[in-house]
Amino acid sequence: MAYFDNAATSWPKPEEVYKTVEDVMRKFGGNPGRSGHKKALEAARLIYDAREVMADFLNAESPSNIVFTMNATDALNIAIKGVLRPGDHVITSSMEHNSVARPIYALTKCGVEWEIVKCAKDGTLDPEDILKAIKPNTRLIAITHASNVTGTVMPIEEIGRIARERDILFLVDAAQTIGILDIDVRNQNIDLLAFPGHKGLYGPQGTGGLYVREGIKLTPLRQGGTGSFSEELSQPDILPDLLESGTLNTPGIAGLAEGVRFLKKLGLSHVRSHEEMLTRRFLEGLKKIEGITVYGCPHKKSEVAVISLNVRGLDSSELAFLLDSKYDIQVRPGLHCSPLAHETIGTIDKGTVRFSFSIFNTIEEIQKALSALEEISSKSR
Amino acid sequence: MAYFDNAATSWPKPEEVYKTVEDVMRKFGGNPGRSGHKKALEAARLIYDAREVMADFLNAESPSNIVFTMNATDALNIAIKGVLRPGDHVITSSMEHNSVARPIYALTKCGVEWEIVKCAKDGTLDPEDILKAIKPNTRLIAITHASNVTGTVMPIEEIGRIARERDILFLVDAAQTIGILDIDVRNQNIDLLAFPGHKGLYGPQGTGGLYVREGIKLTPLRQGGTGSFSEELSQPDILPDLLESGTLNTPGIAGLAEGVRFLKKLGLSHVRSHEEMLTRRFLEGLKKIEGITVYGCPHKKSEVAVISLNVRGLDSSELAFLLDSKYDIQVRPGLHCSPLAHETIGTIDKGTVRFSFSIFNTIEEIQKALSALEEISSKSR
Repeated sequence: MAYFDNAATSWPKPEEVYKTVEDVMRKFGGNPGRSGHKKALEAARLIYDAREVMADFLNAESPSNIVFTMNATDALNIAIKGVLRPGDHVITSSMEHNSVARPIYALTKCGVEWEIVKCAKDGTLDPEDILKAIKPNTRLIAITHASNVTGTVMPIEEIGRIARERDILFLVDAAQTIGILDIDVRNQNIDLLAFPGHKGLYGPQGTGGLYVREGIKLTPLRQGGTGSFSEELSQPDILPDLLESGTLNTPGIAGLAEGVRFLKKLGLSHVRSHEEMLTRRFLEGLKKIEGITVYGCPHKKSEVAVISLNVRGLDSSELAFLLDSKYDIQVRPGLHCSPLAHETIGTIDKGTVRFSFSIFNTIEEIQKALSALEEISSKSR
Repeated sequence: MAYFDNAATSWPKPEEVYKTVEDVMRKFGGNPGRSGHKKALEAARLIYDAREVMADFLNAESPSNIVFTMNATDALNIAIKGVLRPGDHVITSSMEHNSVARPIYALTKCGVEWEIVKCAKDGTLDPEDILKAIKPNTRLIAITHASNVTGTVMPIEEIGRIARERDILFLVDAAQTIGILDIDVRNQNIDLLAFPGHKGLYGPQGTGGLYVREGIKLTPLRQGGTGSFSEELSQPDILPDLLESGTLNTPGIAGLAEGVRFLKKLGLSHVRSHEEMLTRRFLEGLKKIEGITVYGCPHKKSEVAVISLNVRGLDSSELAFLLDSKYDIQVRPGLHCSPLAHETIGTIDKGTVRFSFSIFNTIEEIQKALSALEEISSKSR
């Protein structure tokens, strides 16, 4: 088989991740921050260690600037709804995932103004267009770091500078880039960064997080028990407690930290060069197959290993079904929860078939996919 | 060792739970509902199976009335904020956890009226007092099924009838009762039921859920990708998608289903009688030790296996520390995230030491705890 749906969730995970999750469940069963006994302290130490690992990985000010969430969508909702109030103006690109678009769309029903800056048909975004969209009431710029449809990387450094100079908050959706591209929240002027644990970081599902820059006060999406200031009915005002209520996913978060350690050992540049090599080979091979359309800007370097395509004469679901059932190749068809992106690249009516690679994919698998596409395409002519 | 902090999180879990979580991570790595390939379908089947198991366990109308969340606190926030609007009146007891109290307290800053019905000093609630508190704008009654401080069980059947007759929504916090007391959402007139996965259901941390009665439309707390109606910027209006955005914790949820299967095999009445037996023996033993105060109404039957106590002359943290360090007994001291309950039972200044049992605790462990308390108490005289 060849699993090419890593943009949805990466699989497999490193052996250490599986082992850590199991170990933590079996041996460190306490509730972190909820008591002072050994099992609770062991669990709290695991969580703190994961915060340290993530803070170091992102160059955050301190471990307490890392908030653990259920997934990146949860983190994006916490950020977006923690910032925006009626009368505020928010800017996004036209390549956003529904995890950014739907919360903002819901807020437009309560007086938030939303401006979608149009990207080019290849998915690229001109930072000048962001600058032009700024209004006196612009409170937030929310941009995906890379499109989950085309892999197009957005100019977040330029946008970060634009936002910081104008005192506008900058939220980055790192769903497709964390663990692949270098992220340095302080040098890149990122105020809020939402990330999944189960994609490029190779942690288990049920994990994600939000980096919150020191000094930014979000209104919490959830309140509840934090194991701190328990005598107060108001939510504690300190990070991470302000944004973390209820029992955390201790085994999952420990697994996530293990995934990050695995990446650090490999080095992100090694991960990138492997995935770039797979992507290049795949794109080269695709060029030789008649009837295939590739979306995005596949010849530029600013792409992560996410490729959307269609085969002439075939519906995207049909193609994905054939690849899975006949060739044991797993890809994702349709809109990938990103209708804005499909409107941008002109595929809203039919969707695309998405191939997305991880460090565990091989050249042999790429070759297998190319042969399968060649065969399918020749038959559909 | 003797782990008596099961009200915070149960430990150990059944062997099948550990194995299922690991197996799912290793073998069924897809993202449920995000594609049509085998790995995504396997993951979707696991989630659907867990919904069926939970729906059957609670006597819900259908699997789609079960929404999976990060924990019970997340579920309570989804329910409370999904229902209440400025001008609405909400009734709770004075024994609520901060997971109910803090979200409601936050809403009082936006025009929601909150009435806290006072329980007796032993933690018991008279349903007549709920009836008296109802006003024309009462929209929600939110009650814990059993106190996490004293184990006192609340008269949810009577309150359910009162609420249903008056067309008021009834939310039950089942954090301390799910997997122990029988819950039948339809017969008990429960509209919304929030539950943790990692306590009485013996699932892993990072799991929980919300039952939503058919026909109740909540405003979602989160919006995002659902793998459904992806062309729409508005959140899908159907359950469970309306309230479930982003990637679910597939291995955790599969583990939760396994925990419920473990309980069903044992039978809840067996779980209850084991925990009642442990509780009875513990309470009997405590009576013979001088200088111990037990809170709640320990002689009535309406209690779950959660016992709060203090030893004369000792701070609760001191006692818990001694039990852990000298006797390897894990309990929780302090306020247990429930200041309202401590005000009710008169321990807001000092807190209590909480012992909470699970099916895995033994009579020998109870005996060990009693001997330890006897020794500590005799020295502190």
